[in-house]
Amino acid sequence: MSAQQEALVLFMPSGRRGRFPVGTPVLDAARSLGVYIESVCGGRGICGRCQIEQATGQFAKHGITSAPDNISPANEVEARYAGLRSLAPERRLSCQARVEGDLVIDVPQDVQVNRQIVRKRAETRHIDRKPATRLYYVEVEEPDMEKPLGDLDRLFAALKREWKIDGLTADFRMLSHIPDILRDGEWKVTVAVHDDGRSPAQVIAAWPGFNGDAYGVAVDIGSTTIAVHLSSLLSGRTVASSGTSNPQIRFGEDLMSRVSYVMMNPDGREALTRTVREAINTLIERVCSEGGIRREHVLEAVFVANPVMHHLFLGLDPVPLGSAPFALAVSSSLDIEASQIGIEINPGARVYILPCIAGHVGADAAGATLAEGPQNSDEVTLLVDVGTNAEIVLGNRERIVAASSPTGPAFEGAEISCGQRAAPGAIERVRVDPETLRAKIRVIGIDAWSDEPEFAEKIDQVGVTGICGSGIVEAIAEMFLAGVITADGVIDGSRGDFNGRIVPDRRTFTYVLWPGGEGQGSPITVTQNDVRAIQLAKAALYAGVRLLMDKLGISAVDRIKLAGAFGSYIDPKYAMVLGLVPDCDLKKVAAVGNAAGTGARMALLNTDHRREIEALVRRIEKIETALEPRFQEHFVNAMALPNKSDPFPRLAAEVKLPEPRLASVTDGDGRRTRRGGRRRG
Amino acid sequence: MSAQQEALVLFMPSGRRGRFPVGTPVLDAARSLGVYIESVCGGRGICGRCQIEQATGQFAKHGITSAPDNISPANEVEARYAGLRSLAPERRLSCQARVEGDLVIDVPQDVQVNRQIVRKRAETRHIDRKPATRLYYVEVEEPDMEKPLGDLDRLFAALKREWKIDGLTADFRMLSHIPDILRDGEWKVTVAVHDDGRSPAQVIAAWPGFNGDAYGVAVDIGSTTIAVHLSSLLSGRTVASSGTSNPQIRFGEDLMSRVSYVMMNPDGREALTRTVREAINTLIERVCSEGGIRREHVLEAVFVANPVMHHLFLGLDPVPLGSAPFALAVSSSLDIEASQIGIEINPGARVYILPCIAGHVGADAAGATLAEGPQNSDEVTLLVDVGTNAEIVLGNRERIVAASSPTGPAFEGAEISCGQRAAPGAIERVRVDPETLRAKIRVIGIDAWSDEPEFAEKIDQVGVTGICGSGIVEAIAEMFLAGVITADGVIDGSRGDFNGRIVPDRRTFTYVLWPGGEGQGSPITVTQNDVRAIQLAKAALYAGVRLLMDKLGISAVDRIKLAGAFGSYIDPKYAMVLGLVPDCDLKKVAAVGNAAGTGARMALLNTDHRREIEALVRRIEKIETALEPRFQEHFVNAMALPNKSDPFPRLAAEVKLPEPRLASVTDGDGRRTRRGGRRRG
Repeated sequence: MSAQQEALVLFMPSGRRGRFPVGTPVLDAARSLGVYIESVCGGRGICGRCQIEQATGQFAKHGITSAPDNISPANEVEARYAGLRSLAPERRLSCQARVEGDLVIDVPQDVQVNRQIVRKRAETRHIDRKPATRLYYVEVEEPDMEKPLGDLDRLFAALKREWKIDGLTADFRMLSHIPDILRDGEWKVTVAVHDDGRSPAQVIAAWPGFNGDAYGVAVDIGSTTIAVHLSSLLSGRTVASSGTSNPQIRFGEDLMSRVSYVMMNPDGREALTRTVREAINTLIERVCSEGGIRREHVLEAVFVANPVMHHLFLGLDPVPLGSAPFALAVSSSLDIEASQIGIEINPGARVYILPCIAGHVGADAAGATLAEGPQNSDEVTLLVDVGTNAEIVLGNRERIVAASSPTGPAFEGAEISCGQRAAPGAIERVRVDPETLRAKIRVIGIDAWSDEPEFAEKIDQVGVTGICGSGIVEAIAEMFLAGVITADGVIDGSRGDFNGRIVPDRRTFTYVLWPGGEGQGSPITVTQNDVRAIQLAKAALYAGVRLLMDKLGISAVDRIKLAGAFGSYIDPKYAMVLGLVPDCDLKKVAAVGNAAGTGARMALLNTDHRREIEALVRRIEKIETALEPRFQEHFVNAMALPNKSDPFPRLAAEVKLPEPRLASVTDGDGRRTRRGGRRRG
Repeated sequence: MSAQQEALVLFMPSGRRGRFPVGTPVLDAARSLGVYIESVCGGRGICGRCQIEQATGQFAKHGITSAPDNISPANEVEARYAGLRSLAPERRLSCQARVEGDLVIDVPQDVQVNRQIVRKRAETRHIDRKPATRLYYVEVEEPDMEKPLGDLDRLFAALKREWKIDGLTADFRMLSHIPDILRDGEWKVTVAVHDDGRSPAQVIAAWPGFNGDAYGVAVDIGSTTIAVHLSSLLSGRTVASSGTSNPQIRFGEDLMSRVSYVMMNPDGREALTRTVREAINTLIERVCSEGGIRREHVLEAVFVANPVMHHLFLGLDPVPLGSAPFALAVSSSLDIEASQIGIEINPGARVYILPCIAGHVGADAAGATLAEGPQNSDEVTLLVDVGTNAEIVLGNRERIVAASSPTGPAFEGAEISCGQRAAPGAIERVRVDPETLRAKIRVIGIDAWSDEPEFAEKIDQVGVTGICGSGIVEAIAEMFLAGVITADGVIDGSRGDFNGRIVPDRRTFTYVLWPGGEGQGSPITVTQNDVRAIQLAKAALYAGVRLLMDKLGISAVDRIKLAGAFGSYIDPKYAMVLGLVPDCDLKKVAAVGNAAGTGARMALLNTDHRREIEALVRRIEKIETALEPRFQEHFVNAMALPNKSDPFPRLAAEVKLPEPRLASVTDGDGRRTRRGGRRRG
C-alpha cells in the first residue's frame, strides 16, 4: 500500500471505528476515536500500559478483513520491553504498532504490568476508567542560562509539549522536592497530575525516571465495620480489600450513643475522629502490604459513610445530627487533601467524599445509588441499606425519592435477648418444622445444618452462642410460617408446649429455638419481646418504604436491592415474609453486597461518576419521615405479619402464608422512642 | 419626573457616564458602568463602604446640571448608619441614595470607616482595587428538614442568591467552624471569598454577623532589610509600615555567604528559612498593632524578594542559585496558603509571590518593574536596583531586556576601609573644595553640614563613625571633580599634601576625608583600594547597563529610575559623574524608593496587576551577563571616570567635568572574582 492510502480500524469492545492513513500508530488512532488506552510514557515503549491485541480474520458483519500483515511487525522497542517486563506473544504496544491495512483491535481491560495481581473475590464489575489522577512520564529540558526558566516551569513546559496539559499548578509541598527529583532522574521524571475537571490541574507527586504505579483506595466507613479496597488507577483492577470493626464501637455501639459521647466529653469529637482515621490508616497499610504496593503510590482516596461517620471522620461536629432539624455541616461532595485529614498515603494525594443525601441518608446511600443506578432504569427500584437507620432510595429514570427510617439496632442482633453480632457460633439460618415445631439451625462457622453429621463434629469448637440479625429475621419468619407466632406477632402458647419448645414466660411465651445441652452449646430462645423488637424494626422500615411509594404514587415496586452486610445475609424470601420490604417478584429481589463501597470505587476510577452522583443527589427528593403524618399510620399498620394494609400477592404465589389472625398491637411509641431516639432529641 | 424617565449620571474621577431610570440606586448605576464602589453588606446599609458624594452645580463641559434635588434625600437607613458609625454630612450611602435626575457623583478614594487611619509617609500612589479576597455579608437560610442541605451548602446558596457568586468551594479547615459561626451569628455572617480568577472561588474565612475589616500585607524581603506594608483591601489605604534588618545577616552578610552556609550545614536551609519567616511574623505583628488591626483580619499577603531570599523564604534549596547555570526551582508566580509557609495571619489567608525574572533577577525586580511600568511608556527607561547584585531592567512599550550585574558589596559600604552601613554617624554627603581639597561632610543623624554651627553642637552625641554607600560614591565623585583623583582612579599625590589631606600610604596615596580630632569624631580616609573597589563596582553596573543598551541597539536612555535604599540616598548627579549609570538628562533621573514594595502593594490590591507582571516577565528578554563576551569589554572600558568609551554630553552640560587623563587599569579579574564570586562558583 502506498503512504497515501487509508485503512479502516475497528476497536473492540467499544465498536468505534475510523479510517486512518497507513503508518498511523494504533494508539493515535484509538485516541482520535476517543477509545481509552492508558499510556504513561507517551509512546516511548517504557510503560507497557498501551497493550492491545489484533483480532485477525474476516469480520463480515463489520466488512473488515483483519489480516495478520495489516499491522506492522513488532519492532525493537517492543522487543526491549518484552525482554524487560515480559509481553504476551499476542500482545502489542499500541504506541509502536502501526496501521498497515484494515484492522480489528481488541483493547484488553486488564493490562497486567510488572506484578502478579491478587484477584479480589467479590466486586468484579468493570468500571470505565477516567481517574482524576494520572501519571505522565516526561523528559524535561536542562537548566539553560539563556532561558532562565525555573525547574518547575521547565517541567510544566515539558508536560505541555509532550502531553498537551496546559494551565498546570503544583502542590506547594512538591515544590521543594522537584529540583532534586529532576536531577535524580537526570531530567526524566514521572509526575502524577490531579485533574478532576474542577480545580486547575495540579502536579501532586513526582518520581525520578519512570514510575508506572498509581493506585487509589475506596473506603466505606460504616458504623460497625470499615472496608478498604485498593485499586489500580491505570487498570481499574482491585488489588486487595480488607475490613475491620469500627473501633469507635468502644465509645458507643450505635451512632447516637457516639453522638452522645461527643456531647458529654469535651475531647470526645477529637477522640472519635482520631480513632476512625487510625483504623483507616491501618487498613490502608494492610491492603498495600497485601497487594505489594508502596503507600506513596496511592494517589487518591474516595470515602463513603453515613452522615454521623462522615462528620466524625472529617472532624466535623456530629451533635447537630442528633436532633431536629438534623443539620449537616456540609451535604455536597468534598475535594480535599489526604494530609488534611491525616490519611497516610502519598503526601500529595487527594480525597473525594461523596455527597450526603440528607441528615440521615448519607454518602453511603449516595454510593449505593451510584452503584445500583436506579436512575438509569425504567423499572422502579427499591434500594435499601439496613443499619440502625435504614437508608431507603426508591425510583427510576423519571424520579427518585429517598428517606431514612429509624429501624433501631434489632436487625443487627442488638436488643434481642440472645442476639449477637454476626460471628462464629451465631445462628444465621433457621428452619422450623410445622409439625414438631422443632428448629434446625445453621451457625456461622459451620457449613452444615444442625441435623447433618458435620454439624455434630464441629459444634464443640464453634459452639452455638446466639443469634445474629439475619438469623433472627429468619427465625421469626419461620416461626410465623410454622404457626408458632400469630400474624399479630404473639407467640402462641395455646397449642401446647411441643416438648418444651414453647414455654411460659411471665404473661407471655418464649420459643426455644435451640435447646442446647451436652456438646450442643447454650440454649437459644426467642422471647415475646424479641418478636416485638423485630416487629417494630420491620414496621419502621416498611413504613419508610411505603411513604416513598406514596410519594411516587405507586403500589408496587419492580425490583428490590438489599445493600450492606445485613442485606447480603438475609434471605429475600424471609425479608418479605416478615414484611421488611414490599411485595415483589422474588426473582427480582437480590442482595447487592457492599453497594456503597462499589459506588466509592466507581467514583475513584472515573470522575464522570463523581459528577453523576453529585447531579443525582441534587435531583433526589428528600423525604423526612419525621415530618410526614402518614409515616405513623404506615408504621402502625405494618406491625402485623404479613402486612395488614398491603397484600403480598407475588410472595403468596411462592410461599404458603398462614391466614392473618390480627390482634391489636400493644406496643407503641414508647418502645420505639427508647430505641430509635433520634427523632425526639 | 415620572418613573419612565431616565437621567444622566456621571461618575468622577473615572468620567464614566450612563443613563438610568429614575429610582435606580446610585450603587447599581455605578456597577453597571464598571465604576468600582466597595460594598460588603450588599446594600443593607450596614458596612458604610459604598459612600459617595454628589457634586452639585452646572457642569457645562459635561452638559449636566446636578441639582441638589436630583438625588433622593437621606433615608432612615443612612440615618441609622450615621448614628452608629458617623457619616460626614456631604456623604451618602450609594446603596440607599437613588437617582432622581441628572447627577455628578464623586467616588471618594478614601472611604474611612470605623477607625482612625495612620497615614504612611511615602508611597501614596493610588492603586485601583480589585483584590483577590473580598468580604460578603449574607443572611443564610436556617436548616430545614424538608430541604436537608448542609450548613455550608446553604451558605453557598445565599452567596449565589445575594452576590451572584457561583461555583464556590471552601477551605477544608473552615468547614468545621462554619456551623458554629452560622449559629453564633444567628445565620447572618460575613465571609471572605478568595477569587484570583484562576482557582475556583473559595471561602477562606468567616465571622458571625457583620465584619468590615479586610487587610493585606505586602512584603519586600531584601538581603539586608525586610519591609512590611499593611493595607486595607477595601480602601487600598496603607495603614502601617515597618521594617527591620534581615536577621539572616548572622548567617552571612551577603547572599552568597548564606548560600555557602546552606551548603556547609545540614540544617542550614531550615535555619535560614525559619529565621526570615520569624522576622516577617514579628513585623506583621508590629504593623497590625500599629494599625490597631487584628491579625485574623489580614487575609492576603504578597511577597517580593531577590532569587536567593525568595528560595530561602519558601524553603527551597538556594544552592543551585550559587553556581552556573543558576537554576531557579521555580520562576513563575506562586499562589499558596499562608499557613503552608508559616505566615501567621488569618489561617485561611492566601499568599501571592511575584514571578522571578531570572536566576539573578528576582521577584523584587519584577515588583519594581510593575511599579515603574517601563512597558507602559514610549520612553526607554532604565530601572536599576543596586545591591550586591544590581538588577537592571531596560526598555519601553516595544521591548524590555533585563540582567543582573555582580557589583559586589562596595556600594553598601562593605570592602571600603572606613565603610559602614547607613546608620547615625555615617558620612552620607560630601563636598570637596577644589582649592583647599578640604571636604565638608554631612552625617546621618545631623541635618547640618560640618561647617554649620548645628553640626558642632551635635557631633559629640552622634560622632563620625564611617562612610556609607551613598557617601563613598559622593566622596569619590567629589574627589574626582576636585582633582584629587585622576580619571583613571589614581589618588594624585603629585600636587602636595594639602595640609595633610593627601598622605602617602605604601606605594599609593590616601585622601583624608575627615581628619577628626577633639569633639570631631574619628578620622575618615579614602584609600586607593577604596577607589579601586568603587571603580570595580561601578564598572560592573555600567557594563551590565551597556550590554542591555547594545541588545536594544541604543546609545542613550530617556529616563533613569534608581530603586532601593541605595538608589534613594545616592545623588543622581554623582552617580552619573562616577559613571554608574549612562548619560541622561539629569531632570529625568530620579530615585523611586522601594519600587519593589510598591509593586507588591499593587499585586496585593489588584489581581490585574498580578496578571500584568506575569505576562510581562514572560515577555522580558533575559540576558545572562556571564554568557556575553562584550560584558568583559564593557567592564574594562568602564573602569575609568568619566567613562572612556561613552561620552556624557548631557551630564557635561550641567557639571564641569575634569579632563580625562587615562592610565592603564591595573586591577583586573582577580579582584572582581574575590568580591562577586557567584559567576565562578
